[in-house]
Amino acid sequence: VEVGEHELIDLIRKAVGGPSGATLVGIGDDAAVYEPTGELALLTCDAFVEDVHFRRSFAAFGLIGAKFVISNVSDIAAMGGFPTHAVVSLGVPGDMSAADVERLYAGMLDAARRYGVEIVGGDIVASRSGLLASVAMVGTVSRERVVTRAGAVVGDVVLTTGRFGGSEAGLKSLTEGLKNTGLVRAAMRRHLEPVARIAEAQALIDVATPHAMIDVSDGLASEVRHLADESGVGMRIHRDRIPVAPEAVEVGRILGIDPLELALGSGEEFELLVTIPASEAERTIEHVSAVTGTAVTCIGEVTERLERCIMVDPRGDEEPLPRVGYEHLAAPRN
Amino acid sequence: VEVGEHELIDLIRKAVGGPSGATLVGIGDDAAVYEPTGELALLTCDAFVEDVHFRRSFAAFGLIGAKFVISNVSDIAAMGGFPTHAVVSLGVPGDMSAADVERLYAGMLDAARRYGVEIVGGDIVASRSGLLASVAMVGTVSRERVVTRAGAVVGDVVLTTGRFGGSEAGLKSLTEGLKNTGLVRAAMRRHLEPVARIAEAQALIDVATPHAMIDVSDGLASEVRHLADESGVGMRIHRDRIPVAPEAVEVGRILGIDPLELALGSGEEFELLVTIPASEAERTIEHVSAVTGTAVTCIGEVTERLERCIMVDPRGDEEPLPRVGYEHLAAPRN
Repeated sequence: VEVGEHELIDLIRKAVGGPSGATLVGIGDDAAVYEPTGELALLTCDAFVEDVHFRRSFAAFGLIGAKFVISNVSDIAAMGGFPTHAVVSLGVPGDMSAADVERLYAGMLDAARRYGVEIVGGDIVASRSGLLASVAMVGTVSRERVVTRAGAVVGDVVLTTGRFGGSEAGLKSLTEGLKNTGLVRAAMRRHLEPVARIAEAQALIDVATPHAMIDVSDGLASEVRHLADESGVGMRIHRDRIPVAPEAVEVGRILGIDPLELALGSGEEFELLVTIPASEAERTIEHVSAVTGTAVTCIGEVTERLERCIMVDPRGDEEPLPRVGYEHLAAPRN
Repeated sequence: VEVGEHELIDLIRKAVGGPSGATLVGIGDDAAVYEPTGELALLTCDAFVEDVHFRRSFAAFGLIGAKFVISNVSDIAAMGGFPTHAVVSLGVPGDMSAADVERLYAGMLDAARRYGVEIVGGDIVASRSGLLASVAMVGTVSRERVVTRAGAVVGDVVLTTGRFGGSEAGLKSLTEGLKNTGLVRAAMRRHLEPVARIAEAQALIDVATPHAMIDVSDGLASEVRHLADESGVGMRIHRDRIPVAPEAVEVGRILGIDPLELALGSGEEFELLVTIPASEAERTIEHVSAVTGTAVTCIGEVTERLERCIMVDPRGDEEPLPRVGYEHLAAPRN
C-alpha cells in the first residue's frame, strides 16, 4: 500500500465508527469489550486467499469484503445462532491503495450491518502475495436451539434450503468469460453476492427439531458426507429431488457440464443442510418457505452408518454419492 | 503440504482433542459453542506472516505456534482480562509437511494450556508465499476491572513491567548470526519464547486503579504514543529510568547499537505499560513485584496533551520521544 500503517488504521477506524449497543470498547484497543447476550456463545473463523477464494478481476473490493463476512455469518446460522461481533485480520499487498482498503471495509461493514454484526477490531499486515483475510466472528445462541453436525439419527429426513449449483455456475461463467446477461448474470451474482440463511435457520428451529445442521460451503455432496460422518450415520440422497438452480442448468448447457455435477460440487452456496424427524417434514417445509420465501426441499433420508452415503436414481439404482467439492488445500489457481 | 485437506484436519482435531469444561462444542463444527463466563467478553486477533513476523530459520514450528497464541493472550492481559477460547486460521505453504503442521499445533496448544485457553476451531487454506496465521481470541473480564488505552489522566505516573530491548536484541542476534551463548542466548530466547503478563495485570488491578493500559507489541516509544493519543494526554518519560534489559546492553555492545534505542524500539516485548494515580505508585511497585517476581518501574508522568510525548534526560534536557518501533506495513524482509 502507498500509505503508512497509522493512516490506514485511522482510515479503518473512521469507516468502522465507534462502538454501539452492548459494545463497550470497539476497534482501536488491545481487545474489544462487549456484554455477552444470550445463554451460550459461538465462535468461528474463515480464511480467504486471493486467487484461491476470490479474484479482483471478478468482483469489486466491496463485494469481496461482504463475502468475507457472510461466509462467517453462514457458519453462525448453521449452529442456530445470531452473529454479534467480528474481528478482521488483513494481509494487504503492495498494489492495493488506501481507497481499495476503504472499499473492502465498506463492503464488510455493509454486510455486517445487514446481519446485525459489529466489526470491533482487527490486525493489518503487509502481504507479499495478494490480499489475505481472516474474519473471526462471535455470536449467541440459546441452549435449547444449538444444532451441531453430530445429531442426525436413522429415520430423519434430509432437507436443504434453496437451490444448488448457482455459485459454481457463476464462478465458471466468470472464469470462461461468458456474457453477463440473463441466467448467466444471475449465476455470477449468486457467486459474488451470496446470502446467509439466518432467518431460514431460525424458522427451521421454530417449527422443527433439527438434529444436525451444516451450511453448504464446500459443496452439497461434501457436506452430506460431513453431516453423516459427524453423526455416525449414512445418508440416502434422491438424485431427482436435488434442487438444481436454473442458473446451473443454463450455464451447464452453455459449457457442456452436467448441471447435477454443478449442484453436487458447488461451494459457497451457503444454503443449509439439515436433518429433522420425518414426522416434521411437511410442516417444516411449509413454515420455512412461508416465513422466509426460501424453498425447502426434502432430498433424502438418514440411514444406518453401514449404508454410507449413496445416491439413488428414480429407478432405484444406487451409486456412491460422488466425491466432488471444494478442496481447501488444492494448489492456488493462477 | 503433501497430504490432503481431510487428513490434515483429522490430524489437527486429534491434536486439539475434545471440548472441555465450559465448552460444549469444540473444533470440527461450523462454530464452537461455549458458556460465556464473567460479566464482559473480550475479543481480539493478530495476524502473522512468515519472514515478516517470524522465520523458520530462527525457530522451530513449536515456538512459532506458541508465539501466535501468546501475542493474543498479551492483548487480553492488557485489557485486565483472562483469555478463554481461540480459533486459528492457517495458510499452509506447499513446503510444509503434515508433521510441521503438527509441531506448529503442538506449540499453539502448549501455550494455550499454559494460559488457560482452549483452541476450539479454525480454518486451513493453501498459501503461495510462506506460512500465514491469524489467531482470534476471546476472553472474559469483570466490568470493574476493564482497562482501556483511553483513561490516562494528567498527574498519573507511567509504569512498566519488565525490562526492554531484549526481544529486538534477540532478533538482531539471530539476524546477524551471533554466537548462541550467555546474554546473546538469553536475548534470543526472549525473542523466541515471550511471556504474556496476565498475572502482572491482575496484580496491578488488585492493588491499584489503572487508568490506561497497553501491551508493548510495537515498541515502548510507540506504545507510549498510543496510550497518550488514545487518552488525549502527553507523557514525560525519564530516559535514565527506562529499564533496559541486560541482553540489550550486551547485544548493543557487540553490534555497536545504543541499548536505549533497542529498548525504545523493540517490538514483541509483551510487557505492560500502564498509568495509575501517583499516590498508588509505591505500593503498586511493591505488590506486583512481590506477587509475580516481575520488576515494575516508574518511567514517567502523564502531562497535558499540549506537552506531547517527550523524553527528559537526568540534566532536565528534553527531546521529543523518538519515533521508533515496528511498522506492520513495512515491506516484508527477505
